[in-house]
Amino acid sequence: MTDTLLIRNVRPAGGASTDVLVRDGRIAAIGAGATGGDTSFDAGDRLMIPGLVEAHTHLDKSFWGMGWHKHTAGPALIDKIETERRNRREFGIDADRQSGRLVAQMVKLGTTHIRSHVDIDTETGIAGIEGVMAMRERLKDVIDVEIVAFAQSGLLIRPGTLELVDRAMALGAEIVGGLDPCAVDRDPKGHLDAIFGLAEKYGRPLDIHLHERGEMGAFSMDLILERVRAMGMQGKVAISHAFCLGMPDIDHVRRLIDDLAKERIALVTTAPASSPAPAVMACLKAGIVIAGGSDGVRDSWNPYGMGDMLERATLVGLRNNFRRDEEMELALDVCTYQGAKVMGIENYGLEVGCTADFVILPGETICEAIVERPADRTVVKRGKIVARHGELTQPIA
Amino acid sequence: MTDTLLIRNVRPAGGASTDVLVRDGRIAAIGAGATGGDTSFDAGDRLMIPGLVEAHTHLDKSFWGMGWHKHTAGPALIDKIETERRNRREFGIDADRQSGRLVAQMVKLGTTHIRSHVDIDTETGIAGIEGVMAMRERLKDVIDVEIVAFAQSGLLIRPGTLELVDRAMALGAEIVGGLDPCAVDRDPKGHLDAIFGLAEKYGRPLDIHLHERGEMGAFSMDLILERVRAMGMQGKVAISHAFCLGMPDIDHVRRLIDDLAKERIALVTTAPASSPAPAVMACLKAGIVIAGGSDGVRDSWNPYGMGDMLERATLVGLRNNFRRDEEMELALDVCTYQGAKVMGIENYGLEVGCTADFVILPGETICEAIVERPADRTVVKRGKIVARHGELTQPIA
Ligand SMILES: [Zn+2]
Ligand SMILES: [Zn+2]
Repeated sequence: MTDTLLIRNVRPAGGASTDVLVRDGRIAAIGAGATGGDTSFDAGDRLMIPGLVEAHTHLDKSFWGMGWHKHTAGPALIDKIETERRNRREFGIDADRQSGRLVAQMVKLGTTHIRSHVDIDTETGIAGIEGVMAMRERLKDVIDVEIVAFAQSGLLIRPGTLELVDRAMALGAEIVGGLDPCAVDRDPKGHLDAIFGLAEKYGRPLDIHLHERGEMGAFSMDLILERVRAMGMQGKVAISHAFCLGMPDIDHVRRLIDDLAKERIALVTTAPASSPAPAVMACLKAGIVIAGGSDGVRDSWNPYGMGDMLERATLVGLRNNFRRDEEMELALDVCTYQGAKVMGIENYGLEVGCTADFVILPGETICEAIVERPADRTVVKRGKIVARHGELTQPIA
Repeated sequence: MTDTLLIRNVRPAGGASTDVLVRDGRIAAIGAGATGGDTSFDAGDRLMIPGLVEAHTHLDKSFWGMGWHKHTAGPALIDKIETERRNRREFGIDADRQSGRLVAQMVKLGTTHIRSHVDIDTETGIAGIEGVMAMRERLKDVIDVEIVAFAQSGLLIRPGTLELVDRAMALGAEIVGGLDPCAVDRDPKGHLDAIFGLAEKYGRPLDIHLHERGEMGAFSMDLILERVRAMGMQGKVAISHAFCLGMPDIDHVRRLIDDLAKERIALVTTAPASSPAPAVMACLKAGIVIAGGSDGVRDSWNPYGMGDMLERATLVGLRNNFRRDEEMELALDVCTYQGAKVMGIENYGLEVGCTADFVILPGETICEAIVERPADRTVVKRGKIVARHGELTQPIA
């Protein structure tokens, strides 16, 4: 095991070719002719981008590596929830094994940090949390995983669930999860008071799934804003999806965006093509942190996905009609720096002193890499090469 | 050169593994133990799908292979048109060379048929048409290309353009193109009378770019419907994009869909994530033929695109929220059979007697192939292997 690594002829952020010296897991020097690496390689003028940040996924319930799973669930939310619970029984989806398989795929493609929502319900209890925790201990050298304790099947409508979420937080989940306070629990005040209460009890942040559209979603968002103000939780809350910010009433959307910016509430988006969604440019201009995520990958909810955050950057670009180079670069920002902000990752980036989490890949420019999503990626995690030219250096699933 | 080809252990349309015999460019037999091929190979239980159909692209103006082109054009349509004209002068976009390069990429990924709109204007005249015609003669063994004579910069607002389109049709372009009768030419009656007149003069079909949204697009669509009825051109007109069918007024959309179905007007969509768009399922249920296309690939308009119609199937699926297997299969149908109908391709498909245009690729099911878009594709065009495991068997650009 070497502690220094010298990468010659690499282009950080698509700039001029230079050399990058990594020592003790950090970027120690950048500049042509940097020396001192025990190990060195020539990157052949490839690009260097910071490690991709998967800010919203569900590692615990992917079918990855289990063969094609036929999707039959109807369109309603409740159909999907029920189908998933049945699938879990019928197919034996082990959270430790499945999260490891999906992490292996994500690492290979350059993801270095993941926020995963993990299901908690009265049927499987906190087995999912325990499974993902076991995986992250096992794979701690190749990936950083943050766990959201998430009551996918409802928090209050299934008595006993709130206590399970509490146990998950006591066990070491980092984030309290929430879900559609009106649409699922049918009790927005009860739901939000419960999750904000847990966040306060454990001194931890919140990440709330908000699929609710239009005025209903805006109402839930207002209730979230009220609690952030009252409890002084600025900078501690993320809202995932936030479809209501894509509603046609742009004056109302503008007011919500201003309020979210003021209370430093972050957003996480998949940039969905078939739903209303927050406009990335408007959010960034207002000063809102907005990160990207895959959401479920090959699970009961979503048959799509390769776990590729560079593909997510393409989808962010397409959804937001980003065509100019500087706009497309923002799409990658959503999948890197913005995600790092949502997750509170320290020393993230490509500067000297930053943790050496990065991806080296072909491309004349950052934009070309976004558009082509080359499979040939070399991934460095805390200074160690974990994938080389698109293949893991060690099996990790 | 062999005239027969036996493919063993292949799964047409994702069905059971069987053998497929190709003779004289056609599928001669399907069944385990088919014999007679001069050449044979084992497909290892891979899938066989019909050749992908690119029903809307712009081969003549892609930057493919010219390095990354920085996008600076503003958001307005006129900005993009002017930027493109300037780019063509500054960068020397040769239609023959560039269309060949993009065709090479598309063929490698399994496209066997292309409808390309080709620019005609008073600056370059019909040089684009001549270039693409030269390319298609050169590459006639690997691809079928249909040419739309397309006044990208306006038909009536630039005097002399109509005469150039007329010349292109006389020269052998197959389809008369149209473009936003209200928004670009500012004279919907004049524009439509002109292009329908040319279609009548040459006895050829029409394909009309209609980006116009909402009620303006619906008005143009009504004017098109009137002319189809009056001139008996049922089954001879396609409308590309048709963004107006994504407008919120669903009663109006329903009436337009019924009218389009009645007059057998086809649609072509890119399934755009950032624009309103026709709902694929609603169109198919009404009996409308709706095909898929990439539109521009890496050109002045669009920095995105790999020329991959399997990726287009993914985007059709995502845009239309197709999650059930049978819905996802429709997304591929849009990029295969539906495109074949729009282009009037005879003997298309995987039945005995069909032209042997198909793609062999890994995947447990059709849906898995759509989601994974494997690079390992073997492509057969009129019975000849033109790409093997993702590489062209002969350089064709
Ligand atoms: Zn989610
Ligand atoms: Zn077009």
